[in-house]
Amino acid sequence: MAGNTFGTLLKITTFGESHGRSVGVVIDGFPSDIAIDLTKIQDALDRRRPGQSPITTQRKESDQIEVLSGIFEGKTTGMPITLAVFNHDAKSKDYSHIKDAFRPSHADFTYHAKYGHRDYRGGGRSSARETLARVAAGALVAQWLAPKGISIQAYVNQIGHIAVSQPYTNLDLSLTEKNIVRCPDPSLAQKMIHLVKETKKKGDSVGGMITCIIKGLPAGLGEPVFDKLHAELGKATLSINACKGFDYGSGFDAASMYGTQHNDEFVPNKPTPTTKTNFSGGIQGGISNGMDIYFRASFKPVATIMHDQNSVDKLGNPIIVKGKGRHDPCVVPRAVPIVEAMAWLVIGDFWLRNQ
Amino acid sequence: MAGNTFGTLLKITTFGESHGRSVGVVIDGFPSDIAIDLTKIQDALDRRRPGQSPITTQRKESDQIEVLSGIFEGKTTGMPITLAVFNHDAKSKDYSHIKDAFRPSHADFTYHAKYGHRDYRGGGRSSARETLARVAAGALVAQWLAPKGISIQAYVNQIGHIAVSQPYTNLDLSLTEKNIVRCPDPSLAQKMIHLVKETKKKGDSVGGMITCIIKGLPAGLGEPVFDKLHAELGKATLSINACKGFDYGSGFDAASMYGTQHNDEFVPNKPTPTTKTNFSGGIQGGISNGMDIYFRASFKPVATIMHDQNSVDKLGNPIIVKGKGRHDPCVVPRAVPIVEAMAWLVIGDFWLRNQ
Amino acid sequence: MAGNTFGTLLKITTFGESHGRSVGVVIDGFPSDIAIDLTKIQDALDRRRPGQSPITTQRKESDQIEVLSGIFEGKTTGMPITLAVFNHDAKSKDYSHIKDAFRPSHADFTYHAKYGHRDYRGGGRSSARETLARVAAGALVAQWLAPKGISIQAYVNQIGHIAVSQPYTNLDLSLTEKNIVRCPDPSLAQKMIHLVKETKKKGDSVGGMITCIIKGLPAGLGEPVFDKLHAELGKATLSINACKGFDYGSGFDAASMYGTQHNDEFVPNKPTPTTKTNFSGGIQGGISNGMDIYFRASFKPVATIMHDQNSVDKLGNPIIVKGKGRHDPCVVPRAVPIVEAMAWLVIGDFWLRNQ
Amino acid sequence: MAGNTFGTLLKITTFGESHGRSVGVVIDGFPSDIAIDLTKIQDALDRRRPGQSPITTQRKESDQIEVLSGIFEGKTTGMPITLAVFNHDAKSKDYSHIKDAFRPSHADFTYHAKYGHRDYRGGGRSSARETLARVAAGALVAQWLAPKGISIQAYVNQIGHIAVSQPYTNLDLSLTEKNIVRCPDPSLAQKMIHLVKETKKKGDSVGGMITCIIKGLPAGLGEPVFDKLHAELGKATLSINACKGFDYGSGFDAASMYGTQHNDEFVPNKPTPTTKTNFSGGIQGGISNGMDIYFRASFKPVATIMHDQNSVDKLGNPIIVKGKGRHDPCVVPRAVPIVEAMAWLVIGDFWLRNQ
Repeated sequence: MAGNTFGTLLKITTFGESHGRSVGVVIDGFPSDIAIDLTKIQDALDRRRPGQSPITTQRKESDQIEVLSGIFEGKTTGMPITLAVFNHDAKSKDYSHIKDAFRPSHADFTYHAKYGHRDYRGGGRSSARETLARVAAGALVAQWLAPKGISIQAYVNQIGHIAVSQPYTNLDLSLTEKNIVRCPDPSLAQKMIHLVKETKKKGDSVGGMITCIIKGLPAGLGEPVFDKLHAELGKATLSINACKGFDYGSGFDAASMYGTQHNDEFVPNKPTPTTKTNFSGGIQGGISNGMDIYFRASFKPVATIMHDQNSVDKLGNPIIVKGKGRHDPCVVPRAVPIVEAMAWLVIGDFWLRNQ
Repeated sequence: MAGNTFGTLLKITTFGESHGRSVGVVIDGFPSDIAIDLTKIQDALDRRRPGQSPITTQRKESDQIEVLSGIFEGKTTGMPITLAVFNHDAKSKDYSHIKDAFRPSHADFTYHAKYGHRDYRGGGRSSARETLARVAAGALVAQWLAPKGISIQAYVNQIGHIAVSQPYTNLDLSLTEKNIVRCPDPSLAQKMIHLVKETKKKGDSVGGMITCIIKGLPAGLGEPVFDKLHAELGKATLSINACKGFDYGSGFDAASMYGTQHNDEFVPNKPTPTTKTNFSGGIQGGISNGMDIYFRASFKPVATIMHDQNSVDKLGNPIIVKGKGRHDPCVVPRAVPIVEAMAWLVIGDFWLRNQ
Repeated sequence: MAGNTFGTLLKITTFGESHGRSVGVVIDGFPSDIAIDLTKIQDALDRRRPGQSPITTQRKESDQIEVLSGIFEGKTTGMPITLAVFNHDAKSKDYSHIKDAFRPSHADFTYHAKYGHRDYRGGGRSSARETLARVAAGALVAQWLAPKGISIQAYVNQIGHIAVSQPYTNLDLSLTEKNIVRCPDPSLAQKMIHLVKETKKKGDSVGGMITCIIKGLPAGLGEPVFDKLHAELGKATLSINACKGFDYGSGFDAASMYGTQHNDEFVPNKPTPTTKTNFSGGIQGGISNGMDIYFRASFKPVATIMHDQNSVDKLGNPIIVKGKGRHDPCVVPRAVPIVEAMAWLVIGDFWLRNQ
Repeated sequence: MAGNTFGTLLKITTFGESHGRSVGVVIDGFPSDIAIDLTKIQDALDRRRPGQSPITTQRKESDQIEVLSGIFEGKTTGMPITLAVFNHDAKSKDYSHIKDAFRPSHADFTYHAKYGHRDYRGGGRSSARETLARVAAGALVAQWLAPKGISIQAYVNQIGHIAVSQPYTNLDLSLTEKNIVRCPDPSLAQKMIHLVKETKKKGDSVGGMITCIIKGLPAGLGEPVFDKLHAELGKATLSINACKGFDYGSGFDAASMYGTQHNDEFVPNKPTPTTKTNFSGGIQGGISNGMDIYFRASFKPVATIMHDQNSVDKLGNPIIVKGKGRHDPCVVPRAVPIVEAMAWLVIGDFWLRNQ
């Protein structure tokens, strides 16, 4: 059934396949009379785009965003906003080698099992190219909510075995975009770049982790039972291609902690109290408490590698999937704007739900 | 706005406060003509109930489930099924000490910030007592889907620093319910019990972790973009009180893995191929592939401790929150049936979505 | 699938069968901190209740409303509000005569075709008894919105061939509740009462029509495309048992009108313009314009009559359905509070959607 | 908030403004592996298009449908299908005369009241041009469900005072498309054409009515309480621009009928019983019973007329709205494919809900 829509009041529906005519998004429920700067949306797309640096795939996507509806004289009208990128160069390559193959850890088999008929070109709908639609939508929300004092920033805190051990509060996040792995620790960034290059040489891929911080959110956003703020952030993040885990605040460390350590004492403050520590990650009972929200997302290594692998085809016969073509050894840095976009979409939705 | 409903086609709406008249659930979309054994629902509730063992709070909840609608002559009718527990003994205790206090790491402050007026008795709506409604609903789904060969089993794999290091495939899960901490490793279970007792003596609380395994699911369940099977499992799990993190398959370990390690090669098999390894955790591209699904959930230590803590009241004044009354040093074992119930609800929903 | 919920932000889910344990409603999304007077809800239920007058069925329903959740110390908490009526006297009557029969123009056959298993006692879920849950929910909304200057009033404008020919603006609506047919024209009311009594004597039933007027709504409520204000009012009204038609403003008369007649010229007024005429029925482009909203609903004669009728049973065999037991010759007067309740629910939902 | 989506499992979201870049639709939930003939979609659009005959506006819309996603190698993939028409000739006309004016019975004022900022060119989002997106979506559903034996046909049964008095069962519906007013009674059609021409000469507009018949639907479609089949058909129909009323089966005539007349006796038949009469309009208790479904929709005269009218502007000042430009004296014939499309969308949605 329908599953391409995200959000409750701020709804986005993405459409399009990797090598189809267009990839785009309809955003419904966006407030009217908000001035929109399209160059900022284009900038966000450019951050996600492959081919930005020597460590990513060299596919050249032009990814020029176009407005199909909902923005008039530079401002939103409250009507559905449609943003799309057209695949002008979708030349008909030869896909016969993957047409009937189930590549390991790709979605080929499961799409086949569920739908029978699928667009196999470049991963079709399961391609990460779908996420450009999310990034465009997120950049729209950012233009609406950033002026209210909210900021969202993500960074890479791990690639392979190289991990940032410091909490985000000890880092200078303004350094994040200064290097191609988007890690705010410059020396670790160099190690990560080296690792990715080595991995690429080996025709292999490597996983990683992203930390995201939401600042400036007032207390009271989120719903108490099922639609808890962190539950929606979790769903949003886990829906990103290759994401395998999500935690927030104390996260997985909470399992080994004691209440006497973990409880965040309230400290008098106006207009709302703050907390002395922030193991809660800015959310209590599913609702924001005014402190920073921070969460992590782990990503698996991408499935496309330059090695031959055993697999099966549509008929169930054993085959060898050849390692050939382009590959992207580590998509985690490019996932940074996607994580941010999903966070903006969640916050935008709860902003409307709270009114 | 409304946020007390979970599910898309199989929808549950829970209602009720800890010390109100009733806690219950309306399940809409449940198929008709399914025979229901109420004693199995009662059994599930009893697994969640406090006061089951020396290590939990001694609150005596009778938790007798009653059917208000939707089941006729022992079978479902396709109409909304309402299950409720009435709080017969909700005597009017004195709550003046917490009426205006914001207890550290409870939802007192955030509910106040969001709603103004709240039922403060025993945590009101934010109490884990709400989860009995989920457990009842999950037990209903189990009776419908277990006959189709699906099983869901969760266990405690960590309490405090004591953790099961084995993968679930090396454990005898039938031992899970043999001890009061619901850990299938008997010797670790004894250590966990000891730890919880020590923690209780100190008036402290401790966190933990649960692993859950879904077996027997056919390939093809889940939706490819936003409503990925693992994204919904993540949201469902994260919506449980005190849950701080969720991962599935390789999870957080994926961040340090390579594609050559992580890719799950397909192996010819009828009717559907299997995979040699299962780092994917039974889900690829958001859709089940027929292998076991397994995921983990981390839980923070409960906020109620027997220590005095600094905090603030409604007016912003500093106060001391006294450590007194009953407390439950570790709720993780009792969360096992809740995790299972949420997994049943997700699977039941996708089962219907797949038709 | 699930279909027992109405509303987008103000959601009600009704449950229960005519002769089951309980009939009730969960209202989710209702604002917090609203004072609720339960006697007003009880009054609304009493208006809908059968057995109020000589012209209705003599079934004695006590219909005592009970609050199961969401109201604390006389005020709403923002949590789901559950209201229920318990069927204390649901004695096990003999239903063997209707168990397998498909009564003409009842829902017996269609429920059987769709669900297989159904609660046949007193119509089960298809009984108009379900509407008491709607009336309770509507009465809740009225207490929240009436203080904002909104009023909703319905009346019977036709029973059988006796119809009010005047527009509502020429009637004294305060007379509506002065007679048992709820017609504000006292002399037509007497004729209607006579007609219903004659109809009852003949063991027959008769249809009718209701007009409903919403006053005091500000401009700007409604959504422009699919969820037009009148489209939602239409769905809400048509979902009431026995309703066969809905129109608003000029309605079915519009078909024979000309633009020069029908266009409502705007008249300068502060803060918002008014219109000289109101053929638009207070809604333009799906959005309220600040003028009165008025609509009509037609109702068929109830299917239960005291005549023998040809029909078939579950196995497809011809049978005679006997005319026996109690019957209600005209439910239209009792539908007045149901129409009002559905209108309150629609307005309440759009009120929240507009914020 | 978001309101541009219709449907529960088969969801369509329309986007675009009359003179914007594009008008289109995203259809989510459409089944996979269905062969699609785009020329049939184009044919449906051409039926709705203005400028088809001497009695409509002469605006030349090329309305060439394009597929942006979801159809691969001529078949659906289960992914969102995006269909769009690009407004290649949206030249920048001078709209200064309507920019700040509230035209009588248009949506200018209500959009302004609700959104502040609006695209005023040609009615923007409130233009009937939005309905081409619905027609395209409906034509898609028709290609999926017509092979299952379902047909939907609408015709004009009234324009102004000229009305078809016969029930649809006495008409030869194959004559509907033989004349430009889409009335299956050839002699009444001529009178209607004459009336529309006279109306056009006078610079006036005229209303009308459409009857729609759904044949071949099996018993069991629809939901029993709020989402009754006729309630959804009602909402769908009422959401069409200019629609003022909806009834089905006996409709508004039911108000003056008796149960002994109105009850539809069941007649033994295999596999499911039929009814002797069909005042129920093929729906009982909100669920289809296998008989023909028929309903009516009334339409007001369009608001654009060639007469000067009094009105107010944005600032509340009195103005004269000039009667100038093109006008369409009667849109009812062009609404026929829109009514059919909305019916297909409702049926398609319930088809999926029933599985």
